[in-house]
Amino acid sequence: MSQRTAVVIGVGAEQGLGAALCRRFAAEGYHVLVAGRTAAKLEQTAQTIGAAGGSAEAWVTDTTREEDVIRLFDRAMAPGEGREPADLVVFNAGNNQRIDFRELTAGQFEEFWRVGCFGGFLVGREAARRLVPLGRGTVIFTGASGSLRGKPGYAQFAAAKAGLRMISQSMAREYGPLGIHVAHVVIDGGIDGERLRKLVPQAIEARGEDGLLGIDAIADTYWQIHRQPRSAWTQETDLRPFKESF
Amino acid sequence: MSQRTAVVIGVGAEQGLGAALCRRFAAEGYHVLVAGRTAAKLEQTAQTIGAAGGSAEAWVTDTTREEDVIRLFDRAMAPGEGREPADLVVFNAGNNQRIDFRELTAGQFEEFWRVGCFGGFLVGREAARRLVPLGRGTVIFTGASGSLRGKPGYAQFAAAKAGLRMISQSMAREYGPLGIHVAHVVIDGGIDGERLRKLVPQAIEARGEDGLLGIDAIADTYWQIHRQPRSAWTQETDLRPFKESF
Amino acid sequence: MSQRTAVVIGVGAEQGLGAALCRRFAAEGYHVLVAGRTAAKLEQTAQTIGAAGGSAEAWVTDTTREEDVIRLFDRAMAPGEGREPADLVVFNAGNNQRIDFRELTAGQFEEFWRVGCFGGFLVGREAARRLVPLGRGTVIFTGASGSLRGKPGYAQFAAAKAGLRMISQSMAREYGPLGIHVAHVVIDGGIDGERLRKLVPQAIEARGEDGLLGIDAIADTYWQIHRQPRSAWTQETDLRPFKESF
Amino acid sequence: MSQRTAVVIGVGAEQGLGAALCRRFAAEGYHVLVAGRTAAKLEQTAQTIGAAGGSAEAWVTDTTREEDVIRLFDRAMAPGEGREPADLVVFNAGNNQRIDFRELTAGQFEEFWRVGCFGGFLVGREAARRLVPLGRGTVIFTGASGSLRGKPGYAQFAAAKAGLRMISQSMAREYGPLGIHVAHVVIDGGIDGERLRKLVPQAIEARGEDGLLGIDAIADTYWQIHRQPRSAWTQETDLRPFKESF
Repeated sequence: MSQRTAVVIGVGAEQGLGAALCRRFAAEGYHVLVAGRTAAKLEQTAQTIGAAGGSAEAWVTDTTREEDVIRLFDRAMAPGEGREPADLVVFNAGNNQRIDFRELTAGQFEEFWRVGCFGGFLVGREAARRLVPLGRGTVIFTGASGSLRGKPGYAQFAAAKAGLRMISQSMAREYGPLGIHVAHVVIDGGIDGERLRKLVPQAIEARGEDGLLGIDAIADTYWQIHRQPRSAWTQETDLRPFKESF
Repeated sequence: MSQRTAVVIGVGAEQGLGAALCRRFAAEGYHVLVAGRTAAKLEQTAQTIGAAGGSAEAWVTDTTREEDVIRLFDRAMAPGEGREPADLVVFNAGNNQRIDFRELTAGQFEEFWRVGCFGGFLVGREAARRLVPLGRGTVIFTGASGSLRGKPGYAQFAAAKAGLRMISQSMAREYGPLGIHVAHVVIDGGIDGERLRKLVPQAIEARGEDGLLGIDAIADTYWQIHRQPRSAWTQETDLRPFKESF
Repeated sequence: MSQRTAVVIGVGAEQGLGAALCRRFAAEGYHVLVAGRTAAKLEQTAQTIGAAGGSAEAWVTDTTREEDVIRLFDRAMAPGEGREPADLVVFNAGNNQRIDFRELTAGQFEEFWRVGCFGGFLVGREAARRLVPLGRGTVIFTGASGSLRGKPGYAQFAAAKAGLRMISQSMAREYGPLGIHVAHVVIDGGIDGERLRKLVPQAIEARGEDGLLGIDAIADTYWQIHRQPRSAWTQETDLRPFKESF
Repeated sequence: MSQRTAVVIGVGAEQGLGAALCRRFAAEGYHVLVAGRTAAKLEQTAQTIGAAGGSAEAWVTDTTREEDVIRLFDRAMAPGEGREPADLVVFNAGNNQRIDFRELTAGQFEEFWRVGCFGGFLVGREAARRLVPLGRGTVIFTGASGSLRGKPGYAQFAAAKAGLRMISQSMAREYGPLGIHVAHVVIDGGIDGERLRKLVPQAIEARGEDGLLGIDAIADTYWQIHRQPRSAWTQETDLRPFKESF
């Protein structure tokens, strides 16, 4: 019995969603390629997985660089003795930040797109190139409420996220019938992770228990989407904490 | 340890989604109230569950009659010795049929609404009345592509389904913060059940393996939605077979 | 040169949208059938139009009664000497009111649907029956933000309005290619009319100038939609005051 | 009485929408800045306008270059003796082309974004910077069905267009209350212009009369949007030929 392989692009701190996805997939028996920009963070997640008896390797990857993405998939599709080519790919890269529209620089607007949308294109295209010939595999994109709606101060974020959503739709409509499950998860609300705990600790307190999105709970939904048989696939789902206004 | 209770409204033949939901919830240890219009069909599902070691009871219910729905919930919230009040409610009633718009009678238009939308209101309201004081519970509504879009020949269906979706949203926005998980599942595509197998057997063949929605696969997603912790709830998700054009 | 004929269903006080639509169409040279439930209000609008040199007649019509709607169209399609059959129909009936969901009676839920959705079906179907053989005509439905989204306290309104929107879509997709222009206008925000001026005069003050929707401004957009050549038709548009949050 | 000024970015051949917008605004008495990449085409439109007694000037502008956009607005806001600063801005740049997703190059994906989305950001931001202090003005973005949905072969187009739509929404929500009317027009269907007449003349024949979008009809809707009083503004509208399937 050979081991299955997963790739998660956009892994940061252990308190983030990317790391939680890696841990979950490893707990399900997957060998996980932990991909992101910062080696130290990737190593930490890989080590945590290893210490728990799982299998993972860190891959420093800048998702905005085509050669990085190609190299990552070269590895993912030939993951070593006793392992199968990857059949589970998650694109989770992207940042968020409020910026006044009139002060938004061209460089900032482009940077949001490059990480959140262009990076998703490179990953999605490479996944399609590799998975379509095999006729199987799951590709999940992390979305946000900004994927659906543009609010003041978030044009740069929403423009990137809405573009990413369109990539997921174009892929789903083309590759679904070829056996590739392409899904988009609209994550609506703050994630209970390192970033918010640092930036707005008092706001988190104010939200109360379960007032923010739990990363393990999100990771569970990604896993369930991957598990779906092809007779009932989800293309898009939303996730928010029970208290979230929407 | 007391047993948990679920209610499924809109159960027909064993090959249908309603029956599959009942079987799935029973297999997860739930006592299931199997509710629908035709006693014989309900009994059959209840017996199948019993034969498999599960617990279920048939409740003849016309979801368009307020007193029926109230009586059903009276039972669901006091389901007998050793059982907890229901914490899982599924509204699955509704039919579909193409009717030429100019020939659509007032009675037909109303009947689609009465079963698919008004019935959902009665169930949703009763669920809210009973669950909100307990501060917990899941209510799932079965939607369709017609919930989102009106096509020629389906005004009567889409008008009912889109209305049902609005009920689910109004409930989710109001009762989510009070601990009630309200979800809407957009089922897009033909269900591999009795109705289509009778009506269009050759079309089913033409779709090939897994070309139609599998009822057990759909039921699994309903179950996963119910299992979600309140830190990451789905309000809406879609489900379609991999080959479905959308 | 014969005069063209328009029908507006859902006309109330002169400060309302229905009456404004009648005045606008009359000002464009149309003979207008002013239809609604309250004879006195209809007469007032018809008289105002007549006093301004226009042509209008009051038609007491309960849009929820099939025979009323049929009778209205009988007149509209044979509007008398020197007049053409109607080529412009607006369905503008419907109320709005916040009602706590758990206290919403079955009768209330049904009443919202009957006026806002079933009435729209009767009008839409009758319009289709009469206009399709002529291969021309415009049918416009008045929508609301509730057509797109269900909020707490508005399930009854949103369920009706979302259903009405689906009717408009089904009709547009079927009858557009046959030359019938079917449009849906999403009116988002309070209308600067009698109802709000009575109910919440202080809120209107607080909104400031142009803080509410102007009825003549809305009527202008309806007119422009009707004027569109068939090479560029609008199916859906939204309208809101500049200050409205959305 | 001073003359009002409009800017149209994305003007190509005279048979295109950009040129039609320029002609329409000029016919309404506006001085028009005709902006686009190809001097000869801009000159032609400006000359046509001049010959018809209107006022226009060609401005070679690469909408993807920040300095070009700034220079254009410098001119638009100081358009010379007897003219008012621009109060009407249309962003109409962007191309469309089917490209197989797996063969789509990084350069192609970026180019679609750069013209269709990044260019729109530069124009939208510059418009906001200049118009907000004046508290008035209209900014209209040209969208497409790809703004709402990703289809096979059009990921690059949809990702750009959906991003552009988010920019329009972020701007509308922020600047609407400050008096700036920001609208997005979803153009669904082929435009009866030079491009399609060259590429697929037989398909145009097959569509029959009015089977494609008429550029003057589209331009009329843009004009009507600009004319709307602030008590009833459209943020989004769609336009398609009557025969278009959707």
